[in-house]
Amino acid sequence: MSSPKPQEGICGLAQAVGPESWSKVSCPCCISAQVEPLVLIQLADNVQPNTKQWLMAMISANQKSGGAGLLAHPGEDASWGRIVVAAPRCTLLKATEDLGLCKADKDGNMITFSFNDLDNFSSVDDMQKFLTLAQRQYIVKYQLESMRAVRDQRIPGIAGDKGVLKSRQNIFQKLQKVRVILDVFPLRDEKKLQALGREWYSQKRLWGQPLDSIHTYFGGSVAFYFSFLDFYTWALVPPAVLGLFVTFFLPKWGSTDGNKGDPFVPEAIPQSPEADSDQPVSGLMVQAIFSMIWSTVFMELWKRRSAALSYRWGSITLTERFQEPRPGFQGDLGINPVTGRLEPLFPDWKRQVRVGLVSLPVVLLFLGLVVLGMLGFYYCEAVMSSFHKASGSIITAILSYLPSIIHIVYTNMLGNIYRNVAQRLTDWENHREESSYQNHHTLKVLVFTFFNNFAVLFHIAFFKQDLNLLRKRLSSLLILSQAVNQFTEVFVPYIVDRFYGSAEKELKEDDPEADHLQAEGSLPPFPGLFAEYIELLVQFGYLSLFSCVYPLTAVLLLLNNITEIRGDAYKICRLFRKPFSPPESGMGVWQAAFEVLGFVSVVSNCWLLLLAPRVQALTDDAGLSPATVVICAVMVEHVLILLKLILAFMIPDEPDWVRIKREQIEYCSMKAVSQKVSITMLIITCSAHVTSLYLL
Amino acid sequence: MSSPKPQEGICGLAQAVGPESWSKVSCPCCISAQVEPLVLIQLADNVQPNTKQWLMAMISANQKSGGAGLLAHPGEDASWGRIVVAAPRCTLLKATEDLGLCKADKDGNMITFSFNDLDNFSSVDDMQKFLTLAQRQYIVKYQLESMRAVRDQRIPGIAGDKGVLKSRQNIFQKLQKVRVILDVFPLRDEKKLQALGREWYSQKRLWGQPLDSIHTYFGGSVAFYFSFLDFYTWALVPPAVLGLFVTFFLPKWGSTDGNKGDPFVPEAIPQSPEADSDQPVSGLMVQAIFSMIWSTVFMELWKRRSAALSYRWGSITLTERFQEPRPGFQGDLGINPVTGRLEPLFPDWKRQVRVGLVSLPVVLLFLGLVVLGMLGFYYCEAVMSSFHKASGSIITAILSYLPSIIHIVYTNMLGNIYRNVAQRLTDWENHREESSYQNHHTLKVLVFTFFNNFAVLFHIAFFKQDLNLLRKRLSSLLILSQAVNQFTEVFVPYIVDRFYGSAEKELKEDDPEADHLQAEGSLPPFPGLFAEYIELLVQFGYLSLFSCVYPLTAVLLLLNNITEIRGDAYKICRLFRKPFSPPESGMGVWQAAFEVLGFVSVVSNCWLLLLAPRVQALTDDAGLSPATVVICAVMVEHVLILLKLILAFMIPDEPDWVRIKREQIEYCSMKAVSQKVSITMLIITCSAHVTSLYLL
Repeated sequence: MSSPKPQEGICGLAQAVGPESWSKVSCPCCISAQVEPLVLIQLADNVQPNTKQWLMAMISANQKSGGAGLLAHPGEDASWGRIVVAAPRCTLLKATEDLGLCKADKDGNMITFSFNDLDNFSSVDDMQKFLTLAQRQYIVKYQLESMRAVRDQRIPGIAGDKGVLKSRQNIFQKLQKVRVILDVFPLRDEKKLQALGREWYSQKRLWGQPLDSIHTYFGGSVAFYFSFLDFYTWALVPPAVLGLFVTFFLPKWGSTDGNKGDPFVPEAIPQSPEADSDQPVSGLMVQAIFSMIWSTVFMELWKRRSAALSYRWGSITLTERFQEPRPGFQGDLGINPVTGRLEPLFPDWKRQVRVGLVSLPVVLLFLGLVVLGMLGFYYCEAVMSSFHKASGSIITAILSYLPSIIHIVYTNMLGNIYRNVAQRLTDWENHREESSYQNHHTLKVLVFTFFNNFAVLFHIAFFKQDLNLLRKRLSSLLILSQAVNQFTEVFVPYIVDRFYGSAEKELKEDDPEADHLQAEGSLPPFPGLFAEYIELLVQFGYLSLFSCVYPLTAVLLLLNNITEIRGDAYKICRLFRKPFSPPESGMGVWQAAFEVLGFVSVVSNCWLLLLAPRVQALTDDAGLSPATVVICAVMVEHVLILLKLILAFMIPDEPDWVRIKREQIEYCSMKAVSQKVSITMLIITCSAHVTSLYLL
Repeated sequence: MSSPKPQEGICGLAQAVGPESWSKVSCPCCISAQVEPLVLIQLADNVQPNTKQWLMAMISANQKSGGAGLLAHPGEDASWGRIVVAAPRCTLLKATEDLGLCKADKDGNMITFSFNDLDNFSSVDDMQKFLTLAQRQYIVKYQLESMRAVRDQRIPGIAGDKGVLKSRQNIFQKLQKVRVILDVFPLRDEKKLQALGREWYSQKRLWGQPLDSIHTYFGGSVAFYFSFLDFYTWALVPPAVLGLFVTFFLPKWGSTDGNKGDPFVPEAIPQSPEADSDQPVSGLMVQAIFSMIWSTVFMELWKRRSAALSYRWGSITLTERFQEPRPGFQGDLGINPVTGRLEPLFPDWKRQVRVGLVSLPVVLLFLGLVVLGMLGFYYCEAVMSSFHKASGSIITAILSYLPSIIHIVYTNMLGNIYRNVAQRLTDWENHREESSYQNHHTLKVLVFTFFNNFAVLFHIAFFKQDLNLLRKRLSSLLILSQAVNQFTEVFVPYIVDRFYGSAEKELKEDDPEADHLQAEGSLPPFPGLFAEYIELLVQFGYLSLFSCVYPLTAVLLLLNNITEIRGDAYKICRLFRKPFSPPESGMGVWQAAFEVLGFVSVVSNCWLLLLAPRVQALTDDAGLSPATVVICAVMVEHVLILLKLILAFMIPDEPDWVRIKREQIEYCSMKAVSQKVSITMLIITCSAHVTSLYLL
């Protein structure tokens, strides 16, 4: 990538009002001719100019006096409801150390950045090269959120209790609470974005994404999502090939069970001449066994890829737990025993108790309600249909839709209530680290969503034990959900963007410099990657849990993913405001979710194998009792889980070269502890020399 | 504990031949009036005096010239076949840093020891206080084993190829291979040992062991074994109480099945008046559910206890992977990419491949042979007994013993071959770290032993499905094996010791100073803790897997353990030579073995529940088909495993205070990396000052 020129595009603003309008920098090394605007703070309309001035002063103040150590710009004039924020070099460098980011040293190795060892790192003089745009913007957010009042004070221009700031209170959180600050978002860099878009979705290439550029522009979490999507799409090729092979070359296992009525299974299957119903292996069995191996190997290889990316992007040694707690963290003020800093403290065991004794039962209760709803639906439907059969009038025909309607309303209401409850529970659990908060929140919503998506399929597979219904439902789910998904995710926003975007463009042509920020703020905020990950997880579930009954699953998913990549890329580039994206060392809780699915897939595939007509025929011929067959299946399942664990243990989680690099960093840090002191003693000797020389 | 006077007892030797006979120390801080002999090297009878002199010179040479940096003493004279080794202060301190041991600083916190930060640690002037006896002795062994030839050379006094040492070859390993060194063992300290014995097994107290004293005298691995034994014995109290309650107060679940012929089940059970066979809960069910919960909670709490002990004993930050590889490690010489040292290198993936593609299949093959042997035995026995029934002569009666005899011989031969194979396989896997070597070796032997012990019980439970036979077999195994065990482990060695010990004592009275070392060498070497751990593991298996059929298991085990503690203590103190015991941070692979048993226990208990007469009666009444019942049991099992995982996740693996201490250490080490450089810059400034002053 060529070094970008950051002062064009949006940065025209800085030139328009003159660089002297920026707050002053105290540090000589931070003075530069050009200041790059990074983040926009959107204030409420009714904010007084003196409040805005005070906020700008706080943003520019150094960290010892509770400020953010950043540069603030009032925008057009003092009453304009926005503040543009930039970051001086020293603040960026110190925050890089605080975050525990790795940067390339002179030899090109990524090592944990150390502010005092500055000369050892390359391109430390050019912040645009040293940190990615996303990292610079995240650091601004990180600095803003770490502003804390150093003493009890009042916020100027805000009357009453709302304006009172207590000592050590988080300033930014307070201002958001009293609705002085409405929004904070990173500014987009139109030129870079266009270049990225060209590389990413405009070109006609089918595979591959510019992952490094995505990481540079959008940051860690977004880059990890797209890397995973990329890897996952590649990984779909083997099951897709197998699926095609099984569908078109192996004799269809279920042909005797009659699925002529199923519109989703290709009718024109060329029955191969050697098709032999006595063949001991059916497509279902091949698919089931392949699914289990594939899901394990896939996740293990992704872990290695993820470790390599984490090293490449310098996020292998993040030190979140030694940083200040996240803004929403509540607790009694005290000395952190580890870092020695004054900050809110909250004992871990209390959090564990809250998670275990309140959150867990509540989540289980909601899962129970989902199951109850489903069972109630089946029951009511059965009652209604028998009622309709008994007295077939129009009223009963209409009434027979009632259970479905009630069930849909019930599911929706439950989902909405649950989302609210999950949010509150996670807030109340009071996590210290942002990543821990996100993981717990994600986990809660994820379990519920997963249950909602798969309860019906599991019910069909385990209780109704009807493989044809399962195949029918799976294929319709796949095809319908993908169509709906592509439509709502890509097409609708694209149309909206067309109409809406043209209005925006007119505005731009009018006064491009000033209205740019206006336009930026009017885009909807990025809804986060949750829905995207959930979509992939549900897909992966269809594939690893049930694909053996419908071998074309992988083919459909592969086709879907190829468009999904372009769609998601277009969406994040064009249709939403740019999100903040913290540096991350992997997929976090999503990794675990995919791995859990891998284990569930063993259970599910063993069960489906048991139901396979070929296996049932074989066991009937052998004269085994159903109980014996189930016991055998359970034993096979246990052995497979054991093998899966051994396989996961055998494949190292990081490639050798990443392990060596990581151990080098650890070894250096270990050595540093002892060397530190030896140098201290040298100094003492040295000062003694100086003293004696003075005496002479 | 009061500060010991180390120069008495065995150390009389040092005075007898005069401290000047020790090799000289180069470092001024290491000169002391008294030298404490720590380790004895036993040479072969035919070793030439010049070989012995060369070896002593190597032991005394510093580490840069390939020596061990220790003190050597020729014993009585130069031709005496022993070398006594001691350690100077600097070598001990440097090795403490190399090993990554934690020591108490001036404030009493355990932090990673750093040689350069010496003044920050307490009692650094008194090595007897600073390091435990076991640590000092282990360090001597560690130093001896790290001797490497710095160039190609010949060992004086050894002719032919045997005397050739290549550059970087491990000297100690070579000398052991060519039978110059027969044995190395730590010297015992009779006074301390007697004091420890009084506290440990002579006093009449039932509970509690002097764990800190054990750690001081015997070292990490031994102390962890006894700590676990202690904790385990305490943990047996709840199941023992429940077992007694179930046996004597709950109506016997199996009373209708008729076990009158079983001699191990108490006959005189006071049938409580409210005994009601319609009661829905039987003792078996209570025991089965309790076992599952108990085994999880027990292991989780032990992990916490283990972490606390590891902090207390300063082994929380061991750095084995940054040390020199273990002596048996083979590989091409190269630069270690992490530490930058020249040492043999062997790629990890090769080891993984060897483990996965050779060791694992070989182990599975042997397990298969065990099962095959068992099945063959059952088959032959059935054939023989039917043959005997058909033609009942004396010859056939004798012949009917044949299968048992063949099976015993087969099992024994297989066991011997397997032990050999396991050793060779682990050698060939070429582990870099001693702990990794030990873990892999232990794991191999353990899996086999476990299979050997439990195959029969599993066969009875899962295939014969005969709960009465299982109960009979379990109780006889428990009682017989404990009796045999106590007899061979304690009584026989005690008798041997009595006779043998008196002979030794006569010798001692003759010439106490000189013959002490003689007597020391004649004790058998300590066979290691493997057999002890296996015994506990098998016990734990009986208890957690099958105890629900025989509720008194925990009571018997509790009684056994109380004597076991004294017996093991007596054995290690009196009957064997003192072992070397490296500092360790826990039980290593044994921890994992116990945890795996915990999961197997869920499977086994669910299965036994299924077989319980009460449950079978209930399901029969409900009219469920056997297949449905099995499916329900499987679902219950999966849910229980899930709950077990959640429980294990919920209980933190270390107590909060240990976590904080550990994080403090990590935070300090992180901070040190950045501070190091800032101090370097200070020095540069400082030297500039000095230079400018000189110029003035």
